[in-house]
Amino acid sequence: MPDFSIGVDLGGTNLRIAAVSGAGQLLEKVTLGSKGPSTRDAVIDQMCDAIQRLSGKYKESGKFLGAGIGVPGIIDLQAGMLRKSANLPGFEEYPVRAEIERRLRARVVLENDANLAALGEQWLGAARGVPNMAVVTLGTGIGGGIVLGGKIWHGMNGMAGEFGHVTLEPEGHPCGCGNRGCAEQYASASAIVRMAREAIASGEAPALARAASSGAEFGAQSIYNLAVQGDEHARRIFRSFGRYLGILLAGLINVLNLDMFVIGGGVSSAWDAYARNMFEELRERSLVYAATAPTHPLESDSLGKEEGAAAQTESRSQRKTIITPALLGSDAGLYGAARVTLSAG
Amino acid sequence: MPDFSIGVDLGGTNLRIAAVSGAGQLLEKVTLGSKGPSTRDAVIDQMCDAIQRLSGKYKESGKFLGAGIGVPGIIDLQAGMLRKSANLPGFEEYPVRAEIERRLRARVVLENDANLAALGEQWLGAARGVPNMAVVTLGTGIGGGIVLGGKIWHGMNGMAGEFGHVTLEPEGHPCGCGNRGCAEQYASASAIVRMAREAIASGEAPALARAASSGAEFGAQSIYNLAVQGDEHARRIFRSFGRYLGILLAGLINVLNLDMFVIGGGVSSAWDAYARNMFEELRERSLVYAATAPTHPLESDSLGKEEGAAAQTESRSQRKTIITPALLGSDAGLYGAARVTLSAG
Repeated sequence: MPDFSIGVDLGGTNLRIAAVSGAGQLLEKVTLGSKGPSTRDAVIDQMCDAIQRLSGKYKESGKFLGAGIGVPGIIDLQAGMLRKSANLPGFEEYPVRAEIERRLRARVVLENDANLAALGEQWLGAARGVPNMAVVTLGTGIGGGIVLGGKIWHGMNGMAGEFGHVTLEPEGHPCGCGNRGCAEQYASASAIVRMAREAIASGEAPALARAASSGAEFGAQSIYNLAVQGDEHARRIFRSFGRYLGILLAGLINVLNLDMFVIGGGVSSAWDAYARNMFEELRERSLVYAATAPTHPLESDSLGKEEGAAAQTESRSQRKTIITPALLGSDAGLYGAARVTLSAG
Repeated sequence: MPDFSIGVDLGGTNLRIAAVSGAGQLLEKVTLGSKGPSTRDAVIDQMCDAIQRLSGKYKESGKFLGAGIGVPGIIDLQAGMLRKSANLPGFEEYPVRAEIERRLRARVVLENDANLAALGEQWLGAARGVPNMAVVTLGTGIGGGIVLGGKIWHGMNGMAGEFGHVTLEPEGHPCGCGNRGCAEQYASASAIVRMAREAIASGEAPALARAASSGAEFGAQSIYNLAVQGDEHARRIFRSFGRYLGILLAGLINVLNLDMFVIGGGVSSAWDAYARNMFEELRERSLVYAATAPTHPLESDSLGKEEGAAAQTESRSQRKTIITPALLGSDAGLYGAARVTLSAG
């Protein structure tokens, strides 16, 4: 008879809803595609219908503890509203939490999706049992979430974890946020495509140029495919990506000295193309990383869950921050959304 | 009958010891100068004598709760030892906490001096009553300490808060830590002197050249004096200093979204020469800083304690991270050292 809660991932395209038990067991997952309704009220109708159906279905077997809703954008936690969101038209400044609570007659928590991905990986993924960790999500942009002592670190206004807008190059590329040289201009999927287009424009990257004009979608994945096939220009792009990701992580480790950083998002799976350069920068640029332990023999490869767990059992002062790929993929946020009402319940 | 504890600031030159009541009242402060003994055992003798004298003197009026000892360098909290310290010869890898506990028969806590400065400012200084804050200490290098929920944030190995070695310029000046472009190469007293020497070498900074060859000590203070007198080259140095301090703070705010950053250390008092540029970078480079509240009319001037306190009473989502000069000067660490045994007691 497990108590359960419902996690919602309200992205710009998909609406995903999952019932998860208190022990972390997935009971059921529903994905409502992008072809569904697009007005705010229709999305809320659809979400509440699905939550009610799932909560009704499983309430025989345990208590329904509430729903966590993950959304992209800047959230006012107290008010339960989105202050800013590029991908959810109509939701800004609308009392979405209050409206859903009214309909469901259940506890609802509204949270930033990157924060929930961190909580999900900490609960059931790569950082299971690691109290202090962060997720860096490498997608179109860079998202981030920090978990301290097993709880999301919100900071003063719920805006902590904006890793993507840390300045890495003071005179670097302009960013949509108004700054120059933000991390996401150097270590995101968009950055990879920009670097590829720059290489193509130089006239010296024929394989990239062919891929770009082939008619197939030209993105981080196709550039990664070229890198795997040995194309030097594509490989160079991922080396630069790894270098800047390493600079970002080195700074975060010097500041926070966390146990673990989990690298998620679509581009994270290109690990073998960027990890070596990332670790090189970490050793050079983080005295905290370098000081804490001798170089791990596996450090320039993927550290799987086993190595991570083993490292955790070493003595405290011997441990080095572990950098490891995410394990839950796009479900991390969904599990985190379910977790947030369990832990705060 | 106040309970009290004793704080010790064991720097490279001075040894300072203070008895402080649980309510934060200074009972007595002793400064033992640099002309004292210099071997490790002699320093420990002198320290223990002074602690015993003070604890004996005030034990009539309240309970002695223990001694906190602040030291520069990398500390193993569990072991109560210094792992690395440039300024305390003989102390590395020596069980200093155990030895002092043995002599005093009292609880002793060994802590990093920058962490204690943060705790001191949070307890009795500029961040009084602010739960989540950090201190950035601008001296020869840059120190840092983070307080979350009223407690020092140590991270995994007690090494959190190494703000001075966050990379600000990936291809910048080499740093003693092995990295390039560390914050302390751009926003410390040493950085100010280096920039001045570079300006002098260019042959275009006559006032700086005169000051450097005058026979008087040539340091951040004399360069600041020239800036105050209107020398354009000296002013430019502090503008650059403020710019890089702003870049560092913008990154920290994007990551941590703290309530307050307290700027301490010798150079912090040159506030009027660097604050404007620091705030310019903050607005441009931290979407978290920029998003949280409209521009504060006083933001480009010193925010005194009154404004800080007023800002704290605003609603949570309206508040902006406050950047303010430290209030306790070199006593911050001493108060923090006393606090650390009170709060952990």
